[in-house]
Amino acid sequence: MKVLSLDLGGTHAKCGIVEDGKLLRSQVVQIQGDGKLGAALPTVTQGFANLCQLEHLQFSDFYGVVIGFCGLVNREARRVVSTNFKYEDAPNLDLQAWALQQFGLPLWIENDARMALLGEWYAGAAKGNDDVVMVTLGTGIGGAALMGGRLLIGKHSQAGCLGGHFPMRVDGERCSCGAIGCAESEVAGWSLPRTCGKWPQFESSMLAGEEINFKSLFRCADAGDAVALGVLNYCLKVWAANAVALVHAYDPEVLVYGGGVMRSGDIIVNYVQDYVARHTWTPWGAVRVRAALLGEDAGLLGAVPLIQECERSSTNVR
Amino acid sequence: MKVLSLDLGGTHAKCGIVEDGKLLRSQVVQIQGDGKLGAALPTVTQGFANLCQLEHLQFSDFYGVVIGFCGLVNREARRVVSTNFKYEDAPNLDLQAWALQQFGLPLWIENDARMALLGEWYAGAAKGNDDVVMVTLGTGIGGAALMGGRLLIGKHSQAGCLGGHFPMRVDGERCSCGAIGCAESEVAGWSLPRTCGKWPQFESSMLAGEEINFKSLFRCADAGDAVALGVLNYCLKVWAANAVALVHAYDPEVLVYGGGVMRSGDIIVNYVQDYVARHTWTPWGAVRVRAALLGEDAGLLGAVPLIQECERSSTNVR
Repeated sequence: MKVLSLDLGGTHAKCGIVEDGKLLRSQVVQIQGDGKLGAALPTVTQGFANLCQLEHLQFSDFYGVVIGFCGLVNREARRVVSTNFKYEDAPNLDLQAWALQQFGLPLWIENDARMALLGEWYAGAAKGNDDVVMVTLGTGIGGAALMGGRLLIGKHSQAGCLGGHFPMRVDGERCSCGAIGCAESEVAGWSLPRTCGKWPQFESSMLAGEEINFKSLFRCADAGDAVALGVLNYCLKVWAANAVALVHAYDPEVLVYGGGVMRSGDIIVNYVQDYVARHTWTPWGAVRVRAALLGEDAGLLGAVPLIQECERSSTNVR
Repeated sequence: MKVLSLDLGGTHAKCGIVEDGKLLRSQVVQIQGDGKLGAALPTVTQGFANLCQLEHLQFSDFYGVVIGFCGLVNREARRVVSTNFKYEDAPNLDLQAWALQQFGLPLWIENDARMALLGEWYAGAAKGNDDVVMVTLGTGIGGAALMGGRLLIGKHSQAGCLGGHFPMRVDGERCSCGAIGCAESEVAGWSLPRTCGKWPQFESSMLAGEEINFKSLFRCADAGDAVALGVLNYCLKVWAANAVALVHAYDPEVLVYGGGVMRSGDIIVNYVQDYVARHTWTPWGAVRVRAALLGEDAGLLGAVPLIQECERSSTNVR
């Protein structure tokens, strides 16, 4: 099955041609200026046309178009439900009509972390496991849960997606989601500068003269900076405690970590694996913690299993 | 449908005769000495025999026996999987054989918080809502999740049951489940004395001369004791933040609170309702927070919907 696959993540956008578990070709999409999705759709259309030309394919060779979107999605209605700062016009767009007009193809759409989970399940780190939680550590903390080989969806399409928004500190900082002290509002890309800035003796730290992100945090910690080491240790603790919550919430056998922060993935995976082994209540055995294998392509590769799952759902006797 | 229903909770045990959504008659079961379940089964058998005699019924008038158990249960294998201090012999017992030998009836078994949720859904506070999370505040903090009218089970029967075991404080106290700083290890019946004992100026509090439980905590707070007020406020905050995590995890429309602590239920329900309205990311609307209506009988009344759900599952095309 060949699919036109579009990944609209929080920090990057990419279109690709996917055939089953393989990404035949892809290209980054430049979203202009004000981050409106409507204005970017012609660029996406052009991107898919380029890819098809290079692969000597016609739009009619494809089964459909799939979009992974960085927000809450109602896949039955095939619409974006809610966004968190990015692509704020998306809930008003009729993407199904766009796919039909531009390519003559049907559309499927899902949350981007769920797409990454499906990709890693179908062709990456979670292959062969039907009970999986995915965590994406990046600008935010995304999540998704697969139970018995099916994505957990929930009444309003929110279940599993908000794993980064479990409160971990009752007197913590306010999160962009509205909650207090979420994992994301303590130790994600956007909240890291705030957490560092409030750390005792921050002014005396190497970080005070830097642009603060996970790259500079890991570098300053490597150099022995006490504040950076303190913050890094706090990040690891929060990620690990959040992992315990996710295991207790969704009962998985495998936890997969992806996202930009995973360029320093070994430290994180090892820390979380050790913590989870000591601190979860899993009388059946031990949850395995793994780094994602597909990097930024995971979402694109979720396209085929998403279509398969949606088509199975629609013929399922309930 | 008439069922012999047994509720083996953390702090009480009760057997009852249930007909659909009505509890016809019930009696408390005294579990002797060392809390072994095997030794208590003859008392349970005798209890059911007494109830039947009083109702002029024979064992053959019943559809089956249902047990709600305070631990992890594998309902397909019809066995207890893991206990947390109470009834430690239960995983070794063949309860199915016991039901067949004593009553000539088939057995169903589920976790006690899941049974309470089914009871409240079928005949109590969650009637008419198919997306429900139940929290039981008592000696521990129990949980259960209903999604789309089906209990969330998980690969190892743990999903939804461990809602009291989401870490809320990364540097908190160790929980009996193995995790650090769970809601349960901060503010449940068994952990409350520890939390009070470590509170600043505890020695000067009225609580220092008391047996510490939620009853004495509420009473001392009412009397204006500063430590009791501080601890109570902390309890409310942790329960409310835990509610945010549960909403973000399972995407329900209704949160139901039951358990012994709910004798002071209005304060808790109002606090959690207000906090959840302000601090969850629910673009679709507001989660409703309700006190359980069936009290200690909720678990017994889960019997009929449990059998219905199990029988639907076994005939469901997957």
